[in-house]
Amino acid sequence: TVTLNIQTVTLIPGDGIGPEISTAVMKIFEAAKAPIQWEERNVTAIKGPGGRWMIPPEAKESMDKNKIGLKGPLKTPIAAGHPSMNLLLRKTFDLYANVRPCVSIEGYKTPYTDVDLVTIRENTEGEYSGIEHLIVDGVVQSIKLITEEASRRIAEYAFEYARNNQRASVTAVHKANIMRMSDGLFLRKCREVAENYKDVKFTEMYLDTVCLNMVQDPSQFDVLVMPNLYGDILSDLCAGLIGGLGVTPSGNIGANGVAIFESVHGTAPDIAGKDLANPTALLLSAVMMLRHIGLHGHANKIEMACFDTIREKKVLTKDLGGNSKCSEFTADICRRVQDMD
Amino acid sequence: TVTLNIQTVTLIPGDGIGPEISTAVMKIFEAAKAPIQWEERNVTAIKGPGGRWMIPPEAKESMDKNKIGLKGPLKTPIAAGHPSMNLLLRKTFDLYANVRPCVSIEGYKTPYTDVDLVTIRENTEGEYSGIEHLIVDGVVQSIKLITEEASRRIAEYAFEYARNNQRASVTAVHKANIMRMSDGLFLRKCREVAENYKDVKFTEMYLDTVCLNMVQDPSQFDVLVMPNLYGDILSDLCAGLIGGLGVTPSGNIGANGVAIFESVHGTAPDIAGKDLANPTALLLSAVMMLRHIGLHGHANKIEMACFDTIREKKVLTKDLGGNSKCSEFTADICRRVQDMD
Ligand SMILES: CC(C)[C@H](C(=O)O)[C@@H](O)C(=O)O
Ligand SMILES: CC(C)[C@H](C(=O)O)[C@@H](O)C(=O)O
Repeated sequence: TVTLNIQTVTLIPGDGIGPEISTAVMKIFEAAKAPIQWEERNVTAIKGPGGRWMIPPEAKESMDKNKIGLKGPLKTPIAAGHPSMNLLLRKTFDLYANVRPCVSIEGYKTPYTDVDLVTIRENTEGEYSGIEHLIVDGVVQSIKLITEEASRRIAEYAFEYARNNQRASVTAVHKANIMRMSDGLFLRKCREVAENYKDVKFTEMYLDTVCLNMVQDPSQFDVLVMPNLYGDILSDLCAGLIGGLGVTPSGNIGANGVAIFESVHGTAPDIAGKDLANPTALLLSAVMMLRHIGLHGHANKIEMACFDTIREKKVLTKDLGGNSKCSEFTADICRRVQDMD
Repeated sequence: TVTLNIQTVTLIPGDGIGPEISTAVMKIFEAAKAPIQWEERNVTAIKGPGGRWMIPPEAKESMDKNKIGLKGPLKTPIAAGHPSMNLLLRKTFDLYANVRPCVSIEGYKTPYTDVDLVTIRENTEGEYSGIEHLIVDGVVQSIKLITEEASRRIAEYAFEYARNNQRASVTAVHKANIMRMSDGLFLRKCREVAENYKDVKFTEMYLDTVCLNMVQDPSQFDVLVMPNLYGDILSDLCAGLIGGLGVTPSGNIGANGVAIFESVHGTAPDIAGKDLANPTALLLSAVMMLRHIGLHGHANKIEMACFDTIREKKVLTKDLGGNSKCSEFTADICRRVQDMD
């Protein structure tokens, strides 16, 4: 008999359809005998000492202990001054790299068939510094902050990612022709780091040019690395190319193995609790998580089963063009996973 | 006999393929009997008093007198400290609105067939303020400057444009969830101006969401208005949807009728002087110019002839998928224009 190390993962089911799609993922993981144990936590922010918003201690402690989280969609905060939970999580655990693989899904028709790229977004600074001023009445400034350290860190992450995932090239996306100092610094760090990865091709491109070329021929791109806001934009654009946020996985990676994987779509309150939701984005995020942990066999099996279900088109949720329920879609994937044994 | 007011236009042929495509436009305008007289000027920047780069006086005076310019592509400046000519021109003549209609061209295949939108970009401030600082070693900031005045001005331009061009809606594109003060101010001005244009529908959308939805279904968009950098990105993205910068017109509009229309593609030095260039982008920019002046009849005629030539696919330049020379493509459009009389 083989002894498996069981990894405990902090599960944040989230709001709206979050609980349903989380259940779907747990069922599929069980069918695949993935050695994962779930520790469910709620992350609704609370006011800490000094009035600062923070993650509840039970969630924080769970993540600190397990290092790995899987997260469903969270409601947009409505209380004034309440931070975006996504931003608060990235900040709390210093999740400096947002990674989104975008791969065309066979059988799910979009105008593009040959997308196979990864956007790597600096997740901690840039236009998201939160520093803004009123200069005089009617004149406002926002500060984009770029540091050498964060730029080097994300560049290194991108090249390591490329090397470890058999990807041939890294493209730095920037507007250093306009923001010469800030994007200039980011770009310089990318160039420096590139020197240490001679096995990976390095190119640089203006953000506007990337957007134009992306919609004309996405197959030319491989790994793309960029400052925070550009990543926000490009990762959504690329998700659109392969079918939208309902099928796009995402991972937020920090130092020392800490990471939260998440579906980036909304909570879809209109269909919540009706067994109509599509769990694909959360499932593929969980597959990224398995690979992060090193469980490649389980990851490949689940991913293949999910893609097979979509390609066969017999059991699909409404948003994927079918009539099936979330539970039926889930059961179809479970069956395939079990058949692979 | 009818007396026609002849409008003099400052023509900046530009570098690389610029002269060839300018000649093509002049020929077609002649064939269409457009009452335009060209005043050719060179805009290579010179160093003025105090070492500041400026447009040569002959070009500046010509534009000040004529108010209307047509410009081909310009080489990217190579001298250190030399400004982008595009930025210098926008600044010199306070061309605050960059307008790019993106319409699918029948017969020119792209993954999209139903694009019909206009991006309107604030052209003077935002991320293009040029204000940057080194805070401490390894920490740099760029300042995004948003003013009430520039935001109101561009919002008003967008709504006027929508009303005058029978467009149903204006969408403000922003990231006010992140840049609450700066994009918040921009958005507030859009909302205020919208109050005065009850005949035009107003919506607001996050930039990332626009990018995602744009590549999934561009037909849902109409007029889009946004701060400088977002416009840089979205206008190129949208150009990509209809076939790239080789077929996309652009106009930079200032106060009191001042405007420069331009093709935004590069100088294509590899094919310069070989009679291989595609004049479509400059020609369609010149068509925008005719509409700006009020010469709608001539504009429609030339535009129709150009689209007819492309739709028929018999005489196309290489980049459009044909084997014809620039002069042959031009002659085909001239013939059609003349046949319309
Ligand atoms: C929810 C929002 C704050 C966030 C962002 O702008 O980064 C989102 O768009 C994302 O991409 O995760
Ligand atoms: C040439 C460059 C400075 C310019 C910009 O960034 O605005 C270009 O991309 C544009 O869109 O006109």
